Amino acid sequence: MREIFEAELHQLGTDLTTMSQQVEVAIRDAGRALQTADLQLAESVIVADEAIDALERELDTRCVHLLAQQAPVAGDLRVVVTSLRMSATLERMGDLARHIAQVSRRGYPRVAIPQAVSGTFAEMNDAAVRVAERTTQLLRTRDLDLATSIEHDDEIIDRLHEETFTAILGGNWNGTPQETVDTTLLSRYYERFGDHGVSIARRMVFLVTGGHIAGAHTTA
Amino acid sequence: MREIFEAELHQLGTDLTTMSQQVEVAIRDAGRALQTADLQLAESVIVADEAIDALERELDTRCVHLLAQQAPVAGDLRVVVTSLRMSATLERMGDLARHIAQVSRRGYPRVAIPQAVSGTFAEMNDAAVRVAERTTQLLRTRDLDLATSIEHDDEIIDRLHEETFTAILGGNWNGTPQETVDTTLLSRYYERFGDHGVSIARRMVFLVTGGHIAGAHTTA
Repeated sequence: MREIFEAELHQLGTDLTTMSQQVEVAIRDAGRALQTADLQLAESVIVADEAIDALERELDTRCVHLLAQQAPVAGDLRVVVTSLRMSATLERMGDLARHIAQVSRRGYPRVAIPQAVSGTFAEMNDAAVRVAERTTQLLRTRDLDLATSIEHDDEIIDRLHEETFTAILGGNWNGTPQETVDTTLLSRYYERFGDHGVSIARRMVFLVTGGHIAGAHTTA
Repeated sequence: MREIFEAELHQLGTDLTTMSQQVEVAIRDAGRALQTADLQLAESVIVADEAIDALERELDTRCVHLLAQQAPVAGDLRVVVTSLRMSATLERMGDLARHIAQVSRRGYPRVAIPQAVSGTFAEMNDAAVRVAERTTQLLRTRDLDLATSIEHDDEIIDRLHEETFTAILGGNWNGTPQETVDTTLLSRYYERFGDHGVSIARRMVFLVTGGHIAGAHTTA
Protein backbone atom coordinates (compact mmCIF):
# COMPACT_ATOMS: atom_id res chain seq x y z
CA MET A 1 0.00 0.00 0.00
CA ARG A 2 2.72 2.41 1.04
CA GLU A 3 4.72 1.51 -2.05
CA ILE A 4 1.85 2.36 -4.34
CA PHE A 5 1.36 5.63 -2.52
CA GLU A 6 5.06 6.47 -2.81
CA ALA A 7 4.86 5.76 -6.53
CA GLU A 8 1.85 8.06 -6.83
CA LEU A 9 3.58 10.86 -4.95
CA HIS A 10 6.60 10.42 -7.15
CA GLN A 11 4.36 10.62 -10.21
CA LEU A 12 3.03 14.01 -9.04
CA GLY A 13 6.60 15.30 -9.01
CA THR A 14 7.22 13.91 -12.48
CA ASP A 15 4.06 15.55 -13.81
CA LEU A 16 4.96 18.92 -12.33
CA THR A 17 8.40 18.62 -13.94
CA THR A 18 6.76 17.87 -17.30
CA MET A 19 4.49 20.91 -16.96
CA SER A 20 7.47 23.06 -16.06
CA GLN A 21 9.43 21.81 -19.08
CA GLN A 22 6.54 22.80 -21.31
CA VAL A 23 6.46 26.24 -19.67
CA GLU A 24 10.20 26.55 -20.41
CA VAL A 25 9.62 25.88 -24.10
CA ALA A 26 6.67 28.26 -24.13
CA ILE A 27 8.48 31.23 -22.62
CA ARG A 28 11.61 30.65 -24.72
CA ASP A 29 9.60 30.48 -27.94
CA ALA A 30 7.33 33.38 -26.94
CA GLY A 31 10.38 35.57 -26.38
CA ARG A 32 11.91 34.55 -29.70
CA ALA A 33 8.64 35.17 -31.53
CA LEU A 34 8.44 38.59 -29.90
CA GLN A 35 11.93 39.65 -30.96
CA THR A 36 11.61 38.39 -34.53
CA ALA A 37 7.87 38.76 -35.24
CA ASP A 38 7.79 35.03 -36.00
CA LEU A 39 4.10 34.31 -36.54
CA GLN A 40 4.40 30.52 -36.75
CA LEU A 41 6.39 30.33 -33.55
CA ALA A 42 3.87 32.59 -31.78
CA GLU A 43 1.04 30.34 -32.92
CA SER A 44 2.84 27.22 -31.75
CA VAL A 45 3.07 28.72 -28.23
CA ILE A 46 -0.64 29.57 -28.29
CA VAL A 47 -1.63 26.05 -29.35
CA ALA A 48 0.81 24.32 -26.97
CA ASP A 49 -0.75 26.10 -23.99
CA GLU A 50 -3.74 23.76 -24.28
CA ALA A 51 -1.48 20.84 -23.41
CA ILE A 52 -0.29 22.63 -20.27
CA ASP A 53 -3.89 23.29 -19.25
CA ALA A 54 -4.76 19.63 -19.83
CA LEU A 55 -1.82 18.51 -17.68
CA GLU A 56 -3.03 20.78 -14.87
CA ARG A 57 -6.49 19.22 -14.95
CA GLU A 58 -5.05 15.68 -14.89
CA LEU A 59 -2.69 16.48 -12.08
CA ASP A 60 -5.45 18.09 -10.02
CA THR A 61 -7.74 15.12 -10.49
CA ARG A 62 -4.93 12.84 -9.39
CA CYS A 63 -4.27 14.96 -6.28
CA VAL A 64 -7.91 14.88 -5.24
CA HIS A 65 -8.06 11.09 -5.73
CA LEU A 66 -4.91 10.71 -3.64
CA LEU A 67 -6.43 12.80 -0.86
CA ALA A 68 -9.61 10.73 -0.94
CA GLN A 69 -8.04 7.30 -1.19
CA GLN A 70 -4.88 7.63 0.87
CA ALA A 71 -5.87 10.32 3.37
CA PRO A 72 -2.25 11.39 3.65
CA VAL A 73 -0.99 13.24 6.72
CA ALA A 74 2.01 15.34 7.67
CA GLY A 75 4.71 15.52 5.00
CA ASP A 76 2.74 13.47 2.47
CA LEU A 77 -0.27 15.74 2.81
CA ARG A 78 1.97 18.72 2.32
CA VAL A 79 3.32 17.23 -0.91
CA VAL A 80 -0.18 16.73 -2.31
CA VAL A 81 -1.51 20.18 -1.33
CA THR A 82 1.67 21.84 -2.60
CA SER A 83 1.39 19.96 -5.89
CA LEU A 84 -2.16 21.28 -6.34
CA ARG A 85 -0.90 24.81 -5.87
CA MET A 86 2.18 24.44 -8.01
CA SER A 87 0.16 23.05 -10.90
CA ALA A 88 -2.13 26.10 -10.77
CA THR A 89 0.93 28.35 -10.79
CA LEU A 90 2.56 26.55 -13.72
CA GLU A 91 -0.72 26.79 -15.61
CA ARG A 92 -0.66 30.57 -15.08
CA MET A 93 2.95 30.77 -16.28
CA GLY A 94 1.84 28.98 -19.44
CA ASP A 95 -0.98 31.50 -19.86
CA LEU A 96 1.46 34.39 -19.55
CA ALA A 97 3.77 32.90 -22.20
CA ARG A 98 0.68 32.53 -24.38
CA HIS A 99 -0.27 36.18 -23.76
CA ILE A 100 3.21 37.26 -24.87
CA ALA A 101 2.82 35.17 -28.03
CA GLN A 102 -0.61 36.70 -28.63
CA VAL A 103 0.86 40.21 -28.52
CA SER A 104 3.45 39.12 -31.11
CA ARG A 105 0.74 37.67 -33.31
CA ARG A 106 -1.42 40.79 -33.03
CA GLY A 107 1.56 42.93 -34.05
CA TYR A 108 2.56 40.77 -37.02
CA PRO A 109 4.16 41.56 -39.47
CA ARG A 110 5.77 44.33 -37.44
CA VAL A 111 7.77 43.55 -34.29
CA ALA A 112 5.40 44.41 -31.42
CA ILE A 113 7.97 46.17 -29.26
CA PRO A 114 9.74 49.38 -30.25
CA GLN A 115 13.48 49.26 -30.85
CA ALA A 116 14.05 51.43 -27.77
CA VAL A 117 13.05 48.60 -25.41
CA SER A 118 14.08 45.64 -27.56
CA GLY A 119 17.24 45.03 -25.52
CA THR A 120 15.35 45.32 -22.23
CA PHE A 121 12.85 42.70 -23.35
CA ALA A 122 15.62 40.40 -24.59
CA GLU A 123 17.18 40.54 -21.12
CA MET A 124 13.79 40.14 -19.47
CA ASN A 125 13.10 37.05 -21.56
CA ASP A 126 16.52 35.56 -20.78
CA ALA A 127 15.80 35.98 -17.08
CA ALA A 128 12.31 34.48 -17.47
CA VAL A 129 13.75 31.48 -19.34
CA ARG A 130 16.25 30.99 -16.50
CA VAL A 131 13.38 31.15 -14.00
CA ALA A 132 11.56 28.43 -15.94
CA GLU A 133 14.68 26.25 -16.35
CA ARG A 134 15.52 26.50 -12.67
CA THR A 135 11.92 25.79 -11.70
CA THR A 136 12.15 22.53 -13.67
CA GLN A 137 15.46 21.64 -12.02
CA LEU A 138 14.13 22.58 -8.58
CA LEU A 139 11.10 20.34 -9.06
CA ARG A 140 13.39 17.51 -10.13
CA THR A 141 16.20 17.85 -7.62
CA ARG A 142 14.77 19.86 -4.69
CA ASP A 143 18.14 21.62 -4.57
CA LEU A 144 17.23 24.78 -2.67
CA ASP A 145 20.13 26.79 -4.13
CA LEU A 146 17.96 26.91 -7.24
CA ALA A 147 15.22 28.64 -5.23
CA THR A 148 17.71 31.39 -4.41
CA SER A 149 18.65 31.72 -8.09
CA ILE A 150 14.98 32.04 -9.01
CA GLU A 151 14.52 34.86 -6.49
CA HIS A 152 17.59 36.54 -7.96
CA ASP A 153 16.31 36.31 -11.54
CA ASP A 154 12.93 37.62 -10.41
CA GLU A 155 14.69 40.68 -9.01
CA ILE A 156 16.35 41.15 -12.39
CA ILE A 157 12.95 40.97 -14.09
CA ASP A 158 11.52 43.52 -11.63
CA ARG A 159 14.39 45.89 -12.35
CA LEU A 160 13.90 45.51 -16.12
CA HIS A 161 10.15 46.02 -15.63
CA GLU A 162 10.95 49.35 -13.95
CA GLU A 163 13.38 50.20 -16.76
CA THR A 164 10.61 49.67 -19.31
CA PHE A 165 8.45 52.28 -17.59
CA THR A 166 11.42 54.62 -17.26
CA ALA A 167 11.87 54.31 -21.04
CA ILE A 168 8.20 55.00 -21.73
CA LEU A 169 8.01 57.95 -19.35
CA GLY A 170 11.47 59.34 -19.93
CA GLY A 171 10.58 62.00 -22.49
CA ASN A 172 12.34 60.40 -25.46
CA TRP A 173 9.60 57.84 -26.04
CA ASN A 174 8.15 58.00 -29.52
CA GLY A 175 6.17 54.75 -29.55
CA THR A 176 2.66 54.77 -30.94
CA PRO A 177 -0.22 54.31 -28.48
CA GLN A 178 -0.41 50.67 -29.67
CA GLU A 179 3.27 50.19 -28.88
CA THR A 180 2.86 51.84 -25.49
CA VAL A 181 -0.06 49.53 -24.68
CA ASP A 182 1.80 46.43 -25.89
CA THR A 183 5.02 47.34 -24.10
CA THR A 184 3.10 47.94 -20.86
CA LEU A 185 1.24 44.65 -21.08
CA LEU A 186 4.29 42.63 -22.06
CA SER A 187 6.32 44.05 -19.22
CA ARG A 188 3.52 43.19 -16.81
CA TYR A 189 3.33 39.62 -18.17
CA TYR A 190 7.04 39.08 -17.62
CA GLU A 191 6.85 40.57 -14.15
CA ARG A 192 4.02 38.19 -13.19
CA PHE A 193 5.89 35.26 -14.74
CA GLY A 194 8.82 35.93 -12.42
CA ASP A 195 6.48 36.25 -9.41
CA HIS A 196 4.98 32.86 -10.14
CA GLY A 197 8.45 31.31 -10.34
CA VAL A 198 9.20 32.76 -6.91
CA SER A 199 5.93 31.39 -5.59
CA ILE A 200 6.95 27.86 -6.64
CA ALA A 201 10.46 28.34 -5.26
CA ARG A 202 9.10 29.42 -1.86
CA ARG A 203 6.63 26.57 -1.72
CA MET A 204 9.47 24.15 -2.43
CA VAL A 205 11.56 25.69 0.36
CA PHE A 206 8.57 25.23 2.66
CA LEU A 207 8.09 21.66 1.53
CA VAL A 208 11.72 20.69 2.01
CA THR A 209 12.49 22.55 5.22
CA GLY A 210 9.02 22.52 6.77
CA GLY A 211 9.75 26.11 7.71
CA HIS A 212 7.50 29.08 7.36
CA ILE A 213 7.40 31.01 4.14
CA ALA A 214 7.21 34.74 4.38
CA GLY A 215 4.93 36.04 1.65
CA ALA A 216 4.40 32.70 -0.04
CA HIS A 217 1.48 34.10 -1.96
CA THR A 218 2.76 36.39 -4.68
CA THR A 219 2.11 39.91 -3.55
CA ALA A 220 2.62 41.77 -6.79
CA MET B 1 -17.07 13.86 15.58
CA ARG B 2 -19.23 14.46 12.53
CA GLU B 3 -20.83 17.48 14.20
CA ILE B 4 -17.49 19.08 14.87
CA PHE B 5 -16.46 18.43 11.29
CA GLU B 6 -19.71 19.94 9.98
CA ALA B 7 -19.05 23.00 12.10
CA GLU B 8 -15.54 23.27 10.72
CA LEU B 9 -16.74 23.00 7.13
CA HIS B 10 -19.34 25.65 7.86
CA GLN B 11 -16.64 27.87 9.29
CA LEU B 12 -14.67 27.63 6.01
CA GLY B 13 -17.72 28.99 4.20
CA THR B 14 -18.06 31.81 6.71
CA ASP B 15 -14.40 32.72 6.33
CA LEU B 16 -14.62 32.79 2.54
CA THR B 17 -17.66 35.05 2.84
CA THR B 18 -15.73 37.38 5.13
CA MET B 19 -12.83 37.51 2.67
CA SER B 20 -15.25 38.23 -0.15
CA GLN B 21 -16.89 41.05 1.83
CA GLN B 22 -13.49 42.62 2.34
CA VAL B 23 -12.80 42.31 -1.40
CA GLU B 24 -16.13 44.08 -2.05
CA VAL B 25 -15.11 47.02 0.13
CA ALA B 26 -11.67 47.07 -1.48
CA ILE B 27 -12.87 47.22 -5.09
CA ARG B 28 -15.62 49.74 -4.29
CA ASP B 29 -13.19 52.06 -2.49
CA ALA B 30 -10.44 51.54 -5.10
CA GLY B 31 -12.87 52.62 -7.83
CA ARG B 32 -13.98 55.66 -5.87
CA ALA B 33 -10.40 56.64 -5.11
CA LEU B 34 -9.58 56.30 -8.80
CA GLN B 35 -12.42 58.55 -9.95
CA THR B 36 -11.83 61.25 -7.35
CA ALA B 37 -8.06 61.03 -6.73
CA ASP B 38 -8.84 60.39 -3.06
CA LEU B 39 -5.44 59.67 -1.54
CA GLN B 40 -6.69 58.64 1.88
CA LEU B 41 -9.19 56.20 0.43
CA ALA B 42 -6.52 54.71 -1.85
CA GLU B 43 -4.23 54.23 1.14
CA SER B 44 -6.97 52.58 3.15
CA VAL B 45 -7.41 49.99 0.37
CA ILE B 46 -3.66 49.34 0.28
CA VAL B 47 -3.47 48.83 4.06
CA ALA B 48 -6.66 46.74 4.23
CA ASP B 49 -5.24 44.24 1.73
CA GLU B 50 -2.96 42.92 4.47
CA ALA B 51 -6.03 41.72 6.36
CA ILE B 52 -7.25 39.82 3.29
CA ASP B 53 -3.83 38.18 2.93
CA ALA B 54 -3.88 37.21 6.62
CA LEU B 55 -7.35 35.67 6.23
CA GLU B 56 -6.09 33.59 3.31
CA ARG B 57 -3.20 32.22 5.36
CA GLU B 58 -5.52 31.34 8.27
CA LEU B 59 -8.05 29.70 6.01
CA ASP B 60 -5.38 27.65 4.24
CA THR B 61 -3.91 26.46 7.51
CA ARG B 62 -7.37 25.43 8.62
CA CYS B 63 -7.99 23.52 5.37
CA VAL B 64 -4.73 21.58 5.67
CA HIS B 65 -5.53 20.71 9.31
CA LEU B 66 -8.96 19.53 8.28
CA LEU B 67 -7.47 17.32 5.56
CA ALA B 68 -4.98 15.84 8.03
CA GLN B 69 -7.35 15.31 10.96
CA GLN B 70 -10.61 14.40 9.26
CA ALA B 71 -9.42 12.80 6.03
CA PRO B 72 -12.61 13.90 4.30
CA VAL B 73 -13.85 12.09 1.20
CA ALA B 74 -16.33 12.74 -1.61
CA GLY B 75 -18.34 15.94 -1.18
CA ASP B 76 -16.57 17.00 2.00
CA LEU B 77 -13.19 16.67 0.37
CA ARG B 78 -14.41 18.72 -2.54
CA VAL B 79 -15.52 21.48 -0.16
CA VAL B 80 -12.10 21.64 1.48
CA VAL B 81 -10.10 21.59 -1.77
CA THR B 82 -12.44 24.14 -3.34
CA SER B 83 -12.08 26.39 -0.30
CA LEU B 84 -8.31 26.30 -0.67
CA ARG B 85 -8.62 27.43 -4.26
CA MET B 86 -11.27 30.05 -3.63
CA SER B 87 -9.22 31.65 -0.87
CA ALA B 88 -6.27 31.95 -3.27
CA THR B 89 -8.57 33.56 -5.84
CA LEU B 90 -10.07 36.03 -3.35
CA GLU B 91 -6.57 36.94 -2.22
CA ARG B 92 -5.71 37.79 -5.85
CA MET B 93 -8.88 39.87 -6.19
CA GLY B 94 -7.74 41.82 -3.14
CA ASP B 95 -4.31 42.31 -4.73
CA LEU B 96 -5.91 43.68 -7.89
CA ALA B 97 -8.03 46.17 -5.92
CA ARG B 98 -4.81 47.19 -4.17
CA HIS B 99 -3.04 47.64 -7.52
CA ILE B 100 -5.88 49.93 -8.68
CA ALA B 101 -5.49 51.95 -5.47
CA GLN B 102 -1.72 52.10 -6.01
CA VAL B 103 -2.21 53.61 -9.46
CA SER B 104 -4.51 56.27 -7.92
CA ARG B 105 -1.94 57.01 -5.26
CA ARG B 106 0.90 57.28 -7.79
CA GLY B 107 -1.19 59.73 -9.83
CA TYR B 108 -2.15 61.93 -6.89
CA PRO B 109 -3.04 64.82 -6.89
CA ARG B 110 -4.18 64.36 -10.48
CA VAL B 111 -6.85 61.79 -11.42
CA ALA B 112 -4.87 58.87 -12.90
CA ILE B 113 -7.24 58.20 -15.81
CA PRO B 114 -7.88 60.70 -18.60
CA GLN B 115 -11.36 62.21 -18.91
CA ALA B 116 -11.85 60.31 -22.19
CA VAL B 117 -12.09 56.94 -20.39
CA SER B 118 -13.47 58.12 -17.07
CA GLY B 119 -16.98 56.92 -17.91
CA THR B 120 -15.70 53.56 -19.14
CA PHE B 121 -13.83 53.01 -15.88
CA ALA B 122 -16.85 54.07 -13.82
CA GLU B 123 -18.91 51.39 -15.59
CA MET B 124 -16.09 48.86 -15.30
CA ASN B 125 -15.87 49.49 -11.57
CA ASP B 126 -19.65 49.19 -11.14
CA ALA B 127 -19.53 45.80 -12.87
CA ALA B 128 -16.55 44.72 -10.74
CA VAL B 129 -18.37 45.75 -7.56
CA ARG B 130 -21.37 43.69 -8.67
CA VAL B 131 -19.06 40.72 -9.31
CA ALA B 132 -17.71 41.05 -5.76
CA GLU B 133 -21.16 41.49 -4.19
CA ARG B 134 -22.55 38.49 -6.01
CA THR B 135 -19.52 36.43 -5.12
CA THR B 136 -20.24 37.14 -1.46
CA GLN B 137 -23.91 36.22 -1.89
CA LEU B 138 -23.00 33.11 -3.86
CA LEU B 139 -20.63 31.95 -1.12
CA ARG B 140 -23.36 32.56 1.45
CA THR B 141 -26.39 31.15 -0.35
CA ARG B 142 -25.02 28.82 -3.08
CA ASP B 143 -27.76 30.22 -5.31
CA LEU B 144 -26.40 29.35 -8.76
CA ASP B 145 -28.35 32.11 -10.50
CA LEU B 146 -25.73 34.38 -8.98
CA ALA B 147 -23.04 32.44 -10.85
CA THR B 148 -24.80 33.31 -14.11
CA SER B 149 -24.94 36.99 -13.10
CA ILE B 150 -21.23 36.96 -12.36
CA GLU B 151 -20.49 35.54 -15.83
CA HIS B 152 -22.68 38.26 -17.31
CA ASP B 153 -20.90 41.06 -15.45
CA ASP B 154 -17.55 39.61 -16.48
CA GLU B 155 -18.66 39.87 -20.10
CA ILE B 156 -19.52 43.53 -19.48
CA ILE B 157 -16.04 44.08 -18.04
CA ASP B 158 -14.44 42.36 -21.05
CA ARG B 159 -16.41 44.60 -23.41
CA LEU B 160 -15.36 47.73 -21.48
CA HIS B 161 -11.76 46.47 -21.47
CA GLU B 162 -11.94 46.32 -25.27
CA GLU B 163 -13.51 49.80 -25.33
CA THR B 164 -10.59 51.17 -23.38
CA PHE B 165 -8.15 49.96 -26.03
CA THR B 166 -10.40 51.25 -28.79
CA ALA B 167 -10.24 54.67 -27.09
CA ILE B 168 -6.45 54.54 -26.77
CA LEU B 169 -5.90 53.37 -30.34
CA GLY B 170 -8.70 55.33 -31.98
CA GLY B 171 -6.68 58.30 -33.18
CA ASN B 172 -8.26 60.89 -30.87
CA TRP B 173 -6.25 59.79 -27.85
CA ASN B 174 -4.19 62.58 -26.34
CA GLY B 175 -3.17 60.95 -23.08
CA THR B 176 0.41 61.30 -21.91
CA PRO B 177 2.56 58.14 -21.96
CA GLN B 178 1.98 57.90 -18.18
CA GLU B 179 -1.77 58.02 -18.72
CA THR B 180 -1.55 55.41 -21.47
CA VAL B 181 0.46 53.11 -19.20
CA ASP B 182 -1.91 53.64 -16.26
CA THR B 183 -5.04 53.18 -18.37
CA THR B 184 -3.64 49.97 -19.86
CA LEU B 185 -2.70 48.52 -16.47
CA LEU B 186 -5.98 49.54 -14.80
CA SER B 187 -8.02 48.00 -17.58
CA ARG B 188 -6.01 44.78 -17.26
CA TYR B 189 -6.53 44.75 -13.46
CA TYR B 190 -10.30 45.03 -13.87
CA GLU B 191 -10.33 42.37 -16.55
CA ARG B 192 -8.45 39.94 -14.29
CA PHE B 193 -10.73 40.83 -11.37
CA GLY B 194 -13.74 39.75 -13.42
CA ASP B 195 -11.98 36.53 -14.48
CA HIS B 196 -11.32 35.62 -10.87
CA GLY B 197 -14.99 36.18 -10.02
CA VAL B 198 -15.92 33.79 -12.82
CA SER B 199 -13.41 31.25 -11.53
CA ILE B 200 -15.13 31.25 -8.11
CA ALA B 201 -18.58 31.11 -9.72
CA ARG B 202 -17.60 28.05 -11.79
CA ARG B 203 -16.04 26.30 -8.84
CA MET B 204 -19.25 26.85 -6.89
CA VAL B 205 -21.31 25.41 -9.74
CA PHE B 206 -19.00 22.39 -9.72
CA LEU B 207 -19.30 22.05 -5.95
CA VAL B 208 -23.09 22.25 -5.93
CA THR B 209 -23.87 20.21 -9.03
CA GLY B 210 -20.86 17.88 -8.99
CA GLY B 211 -20.76 18.46 -12.73
CA HIS B 212 -17.80 19.20 -14.87
CA ILE B 213 -16.65 22.73 -15.32
CA ALA B 214 -15.58 23.75 -18.75
CA GLY B 215 -12.58 26.03 -18.46
CA ALA B 216 -12.63 26.25 -14.67
CA HIS B 217 -9.17 27.73 -14.68
CA THR B 218 -9.31 31.30 -15.90
CA THR B 219 -7.95 31.34 -19.39
CA ALA B 220 -7.38 35.05 -19.80
